[in-house]
Amino acid sequence: MATDLRVKETELQTVTEQLVDSYTACSRLNHLGHEPLPSREAVAEIISDLQEILYPGYGKRQNLHIGNITFYVGSLVDSLHDRLTEQVARALRHDLKAESPHTDFHALAQKKAVELLRRLADVRLTLERDVEAAFRGDPAAKSHHEIIFCYPGLEAITIYRVAHQLHALGVPYIPRMMTEHAHAKTGIDIHPGAHIGPGFFIDHGTGVVIGETCDIGECVKLYQGVTLGALSFERTDGGELLHGSYKRHPTLKDNVVVYANATILGGLTTIGERAVIGSNTWITESVPPDTTVVLEKPKLRVKGSKAPAHTEAEASMYFI
Amino acid sequence: MATDLRVKETELQTVTEQLVDSYTACSRLNHLGHEPLPSREAVAEIISDLQEILYPGYGKRQNLHIGNITFYVGSLVDSLHDRLTEQVARALRHDLKAESPHTDFHALAQKKAVELLRRLADVRLTLERDVEAAFRGDPAAKSHHEIIFCYPGLEAITIYRVAHQLHALGVPYIPRMMTEHAHAKTGIDIHPGAHIGPGFFIDHGTGVVIGETCDIGECVKLYQGVTLGALSFERTDGGELLHGSYKRHPTLKDNVVVYANATILGGLTTIGERAVIGSNTWITESVPPDTTVVLEKPKLRVKGSKAPAHTEAEASMYFI
Amino acid sequence: MATDLRVKETELQTVTEQLVDSYTACSRLNHLGHEPLPSREAVAEIISDLQEILYPGYGKRQNLHIGNITFYVGSLVDSLHDRLTEQVARALRHDLKAESPHTDFHALAQKKAVELLRRLADVRLTLERDVEAAFRGDPAAKSHHEIIFCYPGLEAITIYRVAHQLHALGVPYIPRMMTEHAHAKTGIDIHPGAHIGPGFFIDHGTGVVIGETCDIGECVKLYQGVTLGALSFERTDGGELLHGSYKRHPTLKDNVVVYANATILGGLTTIGERAVIGSNTWITESVPPDTTVVLEKPKLRVKGSKAPAHTEAEASMYFI
Amino acid sequence: MATDLRVKETELQTVTEQLVDSYTACSRLNHLGHEPLPSREAVAEIISDLQEILYPGYGKRQNLHIGNITFYVGSLVDSLHDRLTEQVARALRHDLKAESPHTDFHALAQKKAVELLRRLADVRLTLERDVEAAFRGDPAAKSHHEIIFCYPGLEAITIYRVAHQLHALGVPYIPRMMTEHAHAKTGIDIHPGAHIGPGFFIDHGTGVVIGETCDIGECVKLYQGVTLGALSFERTDGGELLHGSYKRHPTLKDNVVVYANATILGGLTTIGERAVIGSNTWITESVPPDTTVVLEKPKLRVKGSKAPAHTEAEASMYFI
Amino acid sequence: MATDLRVKETELQTVTEQLVDSYTACSRLNHLGHEPLPSREAVAEIISDLQEILYPGYGKRQNLHIGNITFYVGSLVDSLHDRLTEQVARALRHDLKAESPHTDFHALAQKKAVELLRRLADVRLTLERDVEAAFRGDPAAKSHHEIIFCYPGLEAITIYRVAHQLHALGVPYIPRMMTEHAHAKTGIDIHPGAHIGPGFFIDHGTGVVIGETCDIGECVKLYQGVTLGALSFERTDGGELLHGSYKRHPTLKDNVVVYANATILGGLTTIGERAVIGSNTWITESVPPDTTVVLEKPKLRVKGSKAPAHTEAEASMYFI
Amino acid sequence: MATDLRVKETELQTVTEQLVDSYTACSRLNHLGHEPLPSREAVAEIISDLQEILYPGYGKRQNLHIGNITFYVGSLVDSLHDRLTEQVARALRHDLKAESPHTDFHALAQKKAVELLRRLADVRLTLERDVEAAFRGDPAAKSHHEIIFCYPGLEAITIYRVAHQLHALGVPYIPRMMTEHAHAKTGIDIHPGAHIGPGFFIDHGTGVVIGETCDIGECVKLYQGVTLGALSFERTDGGELLHGSYKRHPTLKDNVVVYANATILGGLTTIGERAVIGSNTWITESVPPDTTVVLEKPKLRVKGSKAPAHTEAEASMYFI
Repeated sequence: MATDLRVKETELQTVTEQLVDSYTACSRLNHLGHEPLPSREAVAEIISDLQEILYPGYGKRQNLHIGNITFYVGSLVDSLHDRLTEQVARALRHDLKAESPHTDFHALAQKKAVELLRRLADVRLTLERDVEAAFRGDPAAKSHHEIIFCYPGLEAITIYRVAHQLHALGVPYIPRMMTEHAHAKTGIDIHPGAHIGPGFFIDHGTGVVIGETCDIGECVKLYQGVTLGALSFERTDGGELLHGSYKRHPTLKDNVVVYANATILGGLTTIGERAVIGSNTWITESVPPDTTVVLEKPKLRVKGSKAPAHTEAEASMYFI
Repeated sequence: MATDLRVKETELQTVTEQLVDSYTACSRLNHLGHEPLPSREAVAEIISDLQEILYPGYGKRQNLHIGNITFYVGSLVDSLHDRLTEQVARALRHDLKAESPHTDFHALAQKKAVELLRRLADVRLTLERDVEAAFRGDPAAKSHHEIIFCYPGLEAITIYRVAHQLHALGVPYIPRMMTEHAHAKTGIDIHPGAHIGPGFFIDHGTGVVIGETCDIGECVKLYQGVTLGALSFERTDGGELLHGSYKRHPTLKDNVVVYANATILGGLTTIGERAVIGSNTWITESVPPDTTVVLEKPKLRVKGSKAPAHTEAEASMYFI
Repeated sequence: MATDLRVKETELQTVTEQLVDSYTACSRLNHLGHEPLPSREAVAEIISDLQEILYPGYGKRQNLHIGNITFYVGSLVDSLHDRLTEQVARALRHDLKAESPHTDFHALAQKKAVELLRRLADVRLTLERDVEAAFRGDPAAKSHHEIIFCYPGLEAITIYRVAHQLHALGVPYIPRMMTEHAHAKTGIDIHPGAHIGPGFFIDHGTGVVIGETCDIGECVKLYQGVTLGALSFERTDGGELLHGSYKRHPTLKDNVVVYANATILGGLTTIGERAVIGSNTWITESVPPDTTVVLEKPKLRVKGSKAPAHTEAEASMYFI
Repeated sequence: MATDLRVKETELQTVTEQLVDSYTACSRLNHLGHEPLPSREAVAEIISDLQEILYPGYGKRQNLHIGNITFYVGSLVDSLHDRLTEQVARALRHDLKAESPHTDFHALAQKKAVELLRRLADVRLTLERDVEAAFRGDPAAKSHHEIIFCYPGLEAITIYRVAHQLHALGVPYIPRMMTEHAHAKTGIDIHPGAHIGPGFFIDHGTGVVIGETCDIGECVKLYQGVTLGALSFERTDGGELLHGSYKRHPTLKDNVVVYANATILGGLTTIGERAVIGSNTWITESVPPDTTVVLEKPKLRVKGSKAPAHTEAEASMYFI
Repeated sequence: MATDLRVKETELQTVTEQLVDSYTACSRLNHLGHEPLPSREAVAEIISDLQEILYPGYGKRQNLHIGNITFYVGSLVDSLHDRLTEQVARALRHDLKAESPHTDFHALAQKKAVELLRRLADVRLTLERDVEAAFRGDPAAKSHHEIIFCYPGLEAITIYRVAHQLHALGVPYIPRMMTEHAHAKTGIDIHPGAHIGPGFFIDHGTGVVIGETCDIGECVKLYQGVTLGALSFERTDGGELLHGSYKRHPTLKDNVVVYANATILGGLTTIGERAVIGSNTWITESVPPDTTVVLEKPKLRVKGSKAPAHTEAEASMYFI
Repeated sequence: MATDLRVKETELQTVTEQLVDSYTACSRLNHLGHEPLPSREAVAEIISDLQEILYPGYGKRQNLHIGNITFYVGSLVDSLHDRLTEQVARALRHDLKAESPHTDFHALAQKKAVELLRRLADVRLTLERDVEAAFRGDPAAKSHHEIIFCYPGLEAITIYRVAHQLHALGVPYIPRMMTEHAHAKTGIDIHPGAHIGPGFFIDHGTGVVIGETCDIGECVKLYQGVTLGALSFERTDGGELLHGSYKRHPTLKDNVVVYANATILGGLTTIGERAVIGSNTWITESVPPDTTVVLEKPKLRVKGSKAPAHTEAEASMYFI
């Protein structure tokens, strides 16, 4: 029952050599001799601490009160400044150092970090409207507390709102790392480049996808599984996909509601004010304001009432 | 490359002041000077230990046998009693202390905690039928072991079954924290208030949503992306959404099967015994027993066979 | 406010006894006196270290370069050998020891572990094509770096590719544990038994399900919510579900594209080369090559332009 | 090579029963059904955070500056208040609840916790003189930085100074837990009840023991292995040791120096101002001011110069 | 300010090669290709859990009571059985496998592990007398609680008592690992081979050394810095030190007291009943019962009373 | 029983203000606005990894063999290079930046880090002689394995040998941090500046102090509690202690043995080859080679044989 040591001593050397050879041969999967990328753990902790600032008392630190909140937040702001600066500097250096070797990326990163912190108070104003929208939109919500404390939709929106600011400040990688962090936790995938107005509510949320060039107005409500995606992609003359931020995802005006698993596609598609898009629909053209779009009533195929005990099995064999 | 200390010393003070001002100005996002909420980490650990009790030997503690199981479970029960009591007391005190300052919330919480533990043996009876249903319903399942050890659907159902008991005992927050914990891990969102009979099986599961007032019979099977949702909401005379638990989600009778991404909506919608709901359908009216509902066959649009190399791109440009 | 000790001393004993009784009574949920299952934590760490080898420099260990990569990878290979051997031995022993008590499972496990490591260099060749496909397929992708570092679709595919090798080597449990690990993180559920060619890209990905007997060609692209599932199950003469790997999931030929939330079902269903399957469709029959399948245009129901302020509410009441 | 399960199932039950029996039989080692003691981990963390406050910037949190120090310290003070209150309440309740069941120990603990925090600024004045004494007393010290950052003697004194305040406030257990924490790290054992003036320096320190009723003046210096102990104990009429704080350890006046491994015993023993006690001496009577006490010159026993190669061995056999 | 990568790529390779060469050249420091030693972390955790059993309620797990103690201890006993068996098997295999390749070390280890657990109830009887001795011997002790919870002397004795049992069972390495663990925490170094009767008390303890072949009676009390050591070593005919357990450390009869920093040496040295050995003495011959041995009164050298301000400095220059 | 919030809101603000005031008033204990010191955690981990390299297979990583050792060590060397460089750069920058603001401290640190790594193979040659000396010097040692794995004396010497190299390279803080780390674990305090030849053995070791300017030859052996210290200090004309490395600690020639608790003081004191210094002696003058120095036989004071039961107590009252 012992491990065969000879195997280890010979085979594993070969395995290692082959892998190292493959690092030369197929080098696109390697990140060798390169400036380091931002740290996933550091970014995750930054997100967590930003949430502490945005919703004081709901997170890791309980028992906050008006007498200690300044200390707590001031301390977090200071420590976030350092950590944000370091991670943003990594991201900038990674992408820009080759072309701009003399830039002081640390100083540049500090500026962007401070600017993000400066915008947080405004982000809170927007989030307050998001929370209000969730309360007004979900009869199951018991209180504002429950929404802030438990709702994954609000968590995804919160992280998006911060990531969007960093995206607007031209920081690479970190905005996407943040929204993918939210995506992994909530199943909601919002590209940090999207524009989304206040009063936004996503209920349940798993499977929601909001593309990079979406433009979403105020007080919009989405349910789980909604896709706001691209319909077609532009290509270069050589047939290559055009990479960039040209408008290819839809626009939703104020007060639009989109029900579960609906799919709305295309940069020219605009859903007008107060329109309602029904579940499971597939929309590739604009919808006027105050319009409701729903699927046809389904055609029923009724099976005879003398179905045997193993109904499910037979149904699945003959009818689906 | 050094951090500019003057920036930190001046700007960050301002940022902090603005944030603290915003805690006064938009106070709905704050939780200051309030009784603490239950601890997320404590609740997550409670869930994990409840799973140890419900499926002994499948979880963290291996090598359990009939000679040591009593010690292990007895020790967990005792420790769970303390931790449950503390967290339940927090939840009760948070919501009820203002109106009922003299209640002994700790004693009340202890009663509820003991009652939950008392019900666990019965919960196991139900879960055994759920496991059996999974085995009978999935040809890819190699064994009962694999289902208990690997299937996210069973994990979500297990956590729901415990959370449902706490919900029935009138404990705030914690049931929802539990099901959101499961939601984050599995993509399956079951409201703890829903009623679900034994023999319940969810395959794959990502995107499943089961609303608060659903009523699900025995031996029901759901696939991924199924929504059992509300069709419309009641409102107060003032136009405000009515918050509460009036019946607004559907009823599924025994032996119903719902295939992937189907959407069933409405409190008056009842899916009869042994009915089969096909993939991607959208159901807002009741379906009689022994009925199968499927989408129409899709209309095909065939593109000419001389399509150039970049078929996908052109297809997406002209046809979708 | 003190805990009532008498309750603990009497009630909890009873609770424990009832639970222990239930371990005898409903024994299918117990794993007592059995060879241990593989460790979830160990498998999660193995996955993480395999990713370090497959994408050196993108993961936990930064600052790798050509001068140290051999040491780092050699060290990981050696340590993975030991840990893989131990976990594979557990899995084999768990399932096979009763019927084959004299097998040297440790030696057998070592062979399979070495073989997996040996195949990793080839896996990298495939993954390089997957990364290239993602870059060519997503206009929002800024660089190969971003794809490897941030895209959940690639993470799910990577873990699947490793799990598939272990599945092919006949290792129980661990392949499924790996893909469920990916499922929990990304919402993408790929059965380790599926066959998938190189150049595979899943965008966004939440809700994707790929069944055990799928056969997917080269350069296939899927969007979120796509199901490649079974249409019907075979049963034994006694009406029991047939457990096993008979072909029950679809075949997708090279260069197929499937848009969001489409559902393709059945072992006889083949989607031909370069076919395009539109969003939200439900496909149960084969589709010829170079064909595009889309949903009908939705029928619009326009509501009068004099809709009052609470449009959404009324819309939901009357029309959806 | 398998574990013998039968052994486990029978023997271990017996072992457990015997142990549980012994909990009844020899109950002095049990702490069953009792109010909990303070948490060792919590106290260790409290010590660590108090050091952060006393020596800001030298500990866990680097990069402190005048712009953020208020936030950092304010935040720590607030959090220490809560944790100190909880641990002090445990200690009080443990010892006093039986005799005083209606006391509000939490409120009492809060008062003592606040008082300790209030005294910290004064403690810093004393510590500043201790650091200065260390710098003036050790030619190997490179800077004040090195002393604060590296010297175990200062660490032990710092922890003692805090513990002494808690001791003076009548808090049970925690002062001793604190000094034993320092003892374990530094080998320096200072009873929290001792009185020690400012400008105190312990060099190297391992083995130093300072008893409960010592009275030490200003600017005293001790080297490693020094004992300031009791010479005899008082007893009750029944011959039992008298437990309590009657003076049984020596008094050292200002500017005394005690060299390594000296032992000074007895409550009536007073070492006068500026006296110097030499290494390895054993002092049980008072020493006047400005006096030096040293051991006699040792008597040499010279061994012949023709000692063979294994000198050490023979030396040890014949001479020691 | 960047790291010079070329240095890393060339120099570090050379460093590595030289080190690997040195593993061949000076192989006594290597442990390559060998059965693994016991795990330090595992042994530390075993010690911690044994303390939980020996002093239930004083350690990590608070809130134990007569209603849950059986579960808690039974669970620990079971888990300790597994971990002890594994570590003891490692130790046995490491030393004995070469000479006895067919022994079932796991089974042998299990026997020894069970035997240790079986002896714990008796160990508690001895420890109870140790605690009693500490209380009777230290006027500063406030209660039995404080001794069990805070006294490092008792901790060292407790660990020794368990290690001594394992030593008597012929387990290599682990007994020494245990006492060195205690040594590191308390500064008290007791060889696991020593024989020590009940009612043993070590006050303060730092620097105490108790050699392998010491024989200590009942109710003995030691203070800090006491050495019970060897006076001379036996050698082989070739002049090599004789390794083994021949008696080379002293014998202390019942009720002996040894004060701080005393040194007692030699296998033939016996300290008679009730003898008292004073501080700083050096004893190499037997002492009769009821005898007290103290150092001579020190000779004082008085310095003139006109000492200048910098007394200490001058004292150290002229007199010490 | 609730916390009094008003107290927190007012008192704690005051406490914070007083503390912040004290940071201005007594600024010697602050480290504000300063380059950061090396990280204690990082240095502790560096020590641990250096031990992995020096004694491969004895530490954290087991199962090393000739087939994987190159990978493991190469990987550690590379990672140590980075971490050492960072910490050494911190130490240099902290002390030298003010006076030399344009130095590239990172590059300087890298050079020193590489040089340390380069010297490790030689350090191993010395350590091999230390291990051999321990085995030849301690009859209780069962094997070389036990010494390397369990002996705190060897651990302290190992850490000293590495720290001494860094000290010789002119690195501030880190050498002292390393030896204080060893001091805390073993009670052995060796200044990194001391010179110590190979074949050095410290048995038991608690309380050993070896001063900065000691000069110790080959094959020297020390027992616990030995002090090699300063006798007097030089002062400046102003009476201030002279800080620096002038010779003030003793010289021990080859093959000297010093028994427990001996104290040897003074920079002019030389202990000749093969001399033996007995326990508890106090040596301030040179000792010729081949000489043995022991304490006088102690004078016995015999107490009458009719001592009552409470002998110890009376003994302590009348005789000690």
